[in-house]
Amino acid sequence: MSVESRPQPADTAGTTAARPAAAASPLPGAPTDGPLTREELHLASRNHAQPLEMLQWPVTPIGMHYLLIHFDIPKLDPTAWRLRIGGLVEHPREYTLTELRHRERRTVPVTLECAGNGRSLMEPRPVSQPWDRGGFGTAEWTGTPLAPLLHDAGIPADAVELVFTGADRGIQGGIEHSYARSLSVADAMSGDVLLAYEVNGQPLPPQHGYPLRLLVPGWYGMTSVKWLSSIEAIDHAFEGYQQTPAYHLTQSAEELGEPVQRIRPRALMVPPGIPDFFTRERFVDAGPVQLRGRAWSGHGSVDKVEVRVDGVWAEAELEPAVGPYAWRGWTFPWIASPGTHELACRASDSSGLTQPEQPEWNYQGLANNAVQRLTVTVRG
Amino acid sequence: MSVESRPQPADTAGTTAARPAAAASPLPGAPTDGPLTREELHLASRNHAQPLEMLQWPVTPIGMHYLLIHFDIPKLDPTAWRLRIGGLVEHPREYTLTELRHRERRTVPVTLECAGNGRSLMEPRPVSQPWDRGGFGTAEWTGTPLAPLLHDAGIPADAVELVFTGADRGIQGGIEHSYARSLSVADAMSGDVLLAYEVNGQPLPPQHGYPLRLLVPGWYGMTSVKWLSSIEAIDHAFEGYQQTPAYHLTQSAEELGEPVQRIRPRALMVPPGIPDFFTRERFVDAGPVQLRGRAWSGHGSVDKVEVRVDGVWAEAELEPAVGPYAWRGWTFPWIASPGTHELACRASDSSGLTQPEQPEWNYQGLANNAVQRLTVTVRG
Repeated sequence: MSVESRPQPADTAGTTAARPAAAASPLPGAPTDGPLTREELHLASRNHAQPLEMLQWPVTPIGMHYLLIHFDIPKLDPTAWRLRIGGLVEHPREYTLTELRHRERRTVPVTLECAGNGRSLMEPRPVSQPWDRGGFGTAEWTGTPLAPLLHDAGIPADAVELVFTGADRGIQGGIEHSYARSLSVADAMSGDVLLAYEVNGQPLPPQHGYPLRLLVPGWYGMTSVKWLSSIEAIDHAFEGYQQTPAYHLTQSAEELGEPVQRIRPRALMVPPGIPDFFTRERFVDAGPVQLRGRAWSGHGSVDKVEVRVDGVWAEAELEPAVGPYAWRGWTFPWIASPGTHELACRASDSSGLTQPEQPEWNYQGLANNAVQRLTVTVRG
Repeated sequence: MSVESRPQPADTAGTTAARPAAAASPLPGAPTDGPLTREELHLASRNHAQPLEMLQWPVTPIGMHYLLIHFDIPKLDPTAWRLRIGGLVEHPREYTLTELRHRERRTVPVTLECAGNGRSLMEPRPVSQPWDRGGFGTAEWTGTPLAPLLHDAGIPADAVELVFTGADRGIQGGIEHSYARSLSVADAMSGDVLLAYEVNGQPLPPQHGYPLRLLVPGWYGMTSVKWLSSIEAIDHAFEGYQQTPAYHLTQSAEELGEPVQRIRPRALMVPPGIPDFFTRERFVDAGPVQLRGRAWSGHGSVDKVEVRVDGVWAEAELEPAVGPYAWRGWTFPWIASPGTHELACRASDSSGLTQPEQPEWNYQGLANNAVQRLTVTVRG
C-alpha cells in the first residue's frame, strides 16, 4: 500500500497520515436513494442505539446509552496509561489516573447525542452510521474539571485551541489517524467541561472511554473524546480529519460548510402501547393514555414541549430538568379512541430554537432534529 | 382490529392471543436475496451486538453483552414485582425479590449466544434480527439455583414441562403474547439453571431482565427468559409462539422441524490491526502478530481451536475456560507478510462437533456457526 501524507499540523501527535486520501468526500459514499448496504448494517450493529422505551428512565442505565465508536474499542492498561498535557503549555506534564482522581471531583448529569442522530431519515440518505433516532443518552458523569488543570498547565496568550486525542486509531476518509478533536481555549476553559473517569457511579466501561474521556456538556457527542491520551495547546485551528472536513453542515463534498457544535433541541416520545416484533408497529388499548418522553437542547433550557395528535398541537406538562445539561421529562394526557392516529412531539428552547417538521438535509447527515412522528393503532 | 384466538394452553397465563395469525410463517417475511429493509436496520439498532474486538475481555463488560429483545424493555417496580410459582405445583406461592436473594446464592460465568447469531450471513437471507456475528457475550451471573425452589414447590409426577413467562409483551407471528418459553422438568431441575438477579456483580440492568431472569447455561439465549414473572408446571408440551413454531430448524414455513436448544461450537477472532471506519477493512503492520480470540460450545468443552492462514489449518493454543459454561481464550502466533491474507478459525468440542465451512441454511436463520473468515491487508 502506498503511503502519502495529507497535510497535518506538526504538533498533533497521533494523527500522522499513513494512507492516501482515497475519497474526496468526507463520507464513505455520496448520499443515495439506494438500498441499505452491508456496511451500514454492520455499523448499526456495532454502534448501539437507545430503544425509545428507555426514555422512561431519567438516567440511562449503563449499557443503554448510545455509542458511536469510529474505530475499535481499545483495551488500555490503567497502570501504564497517562494523560499527556503538552504542546504550547508552559508546564507540560503527565498525569496518572490516580493523580487525576485526587483532583477536584464533580458529578454532572449530561444528555449527549450523536451529531449523526436521525441521519438515515434524510432523503437522499447520507451514507455512514445509519441512525434512526436512538443516538442519545443521559448519564451522570464524574470527573475532574478541565479548567483548573489547564490553569496549572499554563496556557500562553498565543494558544488558540486545545487538541484532545484518543487512543483509538484507524482510517477514515482515506487518512490513518488517532481520533482527535479540538476546542477553542475559551470553550475548553468553560467550567463545565470535565475529564470524566466514572459514569453512573462506576468506573467508565471500556466502550465509554476507560480510563478517561473528555465530556463537553451541551455539545454533540463527537466532541467528548474517549480514551483520552493527550491534550495539546496549539497556535492555530486544528485540521485533523474529525475536525475538518468531518462534522460540518455542508451541501456537497466540495464545500466545507459550518462546523456542528451544540445540540439542537429535540423531544422524543416513549412509544405507547405494545409493539409488533418486526415492524415495531404500535398497538394501544382505547382509553386514557399518559404520553411521556424527554426533551433536551444544548443551546439553552427546554421551555416548551408540544404534542400533536392527528394534526392538533397542544402543550405538554414539563418536569424539572435532570440537570442544567440534561433532559427534562414531559407528559401529555391523551384519550385514545379506536382507529389509527398520528402522534408527534417537538421541543423549543430558551434560545428561541424549535424543531423543524422536515429534516434539514445536509451532505454528512448531521444535526437532524426533525419532529418525531409516530403512527399508532388504537384497539377498541 | 379483529380479535381471534390462536389455540393456546389454558394454563399459560400471560400468553393469551389477541390478534389474528396474520402470517403463516413464524418469521416476518420469506427469506430473500433482496436488499436490507428498514425493519431489519431498526432491529439491528435496537438489539445490540458485541464488536469483535471486545473478545479481548474474558468477561464482557456491562453494556457490551449482546441483547435480543423481542418487544419493549419493561420498567418494573421491584417492590411490586413478584415471581409466581403455579400451575400443577403442590405448593403454589409468590416470592419477593428479597426472599429470592435470601435463598442459596451462586455465581456462574456463562457464555450466551443468540440462536439467530449469523443469520444475515445466510443466503437467501432469513428476514428477522439481522445478526452478523456479534450476538454473544460472557457474563458472571449471580442468582439462586432453580432446582431447590422447584423442589420446595413440589413438582407432581404428571408435570411434563415448566413454562417461564416474562413481563415483556407484544405481537409476533400475528399473535399477541407475553414472551414465554418452556423447559422439560429434567432440564429445569438441572443444578446449573439459575434465577439470576445480578450480572457482573451488579443488579441486573433493565435490559437484561431486571429484577429477575432465568439463566440456562449451555442453551441459546432465547431460553433464558428475562423479566421473569411466573413459572408454571404443565402436563403437556408448551406451544406458545416463542416455543413453537419459533426457534426451530426447518426448511420451510410449512414444516415444523427440530427445536434449537444447545449452543453449537464457535470460535471467533479479534480482528487484528486497525479498521477503516466504514468498510471495517483491516490493516495490519508486517511482522509478528498474536492472533487471539475466544471459543465456546453448549454441547461440551472446547477441546480444539484451529486457525487457517491462506488455506492452511494449524492448531491454536488454548487458555483455560473462564468456567464450565463459559468460553476459553485462544492464541495463535502469525508472521504477517505484506499483501492480502485470509484468516479463519474454528472450534471443536468434546461432543465431537465442529464448525462447518458454510452456513447450514434454515428458514428461520438459526444456529449458523459457520467458520469466521476475515481478509486483512498487511502493510510492509
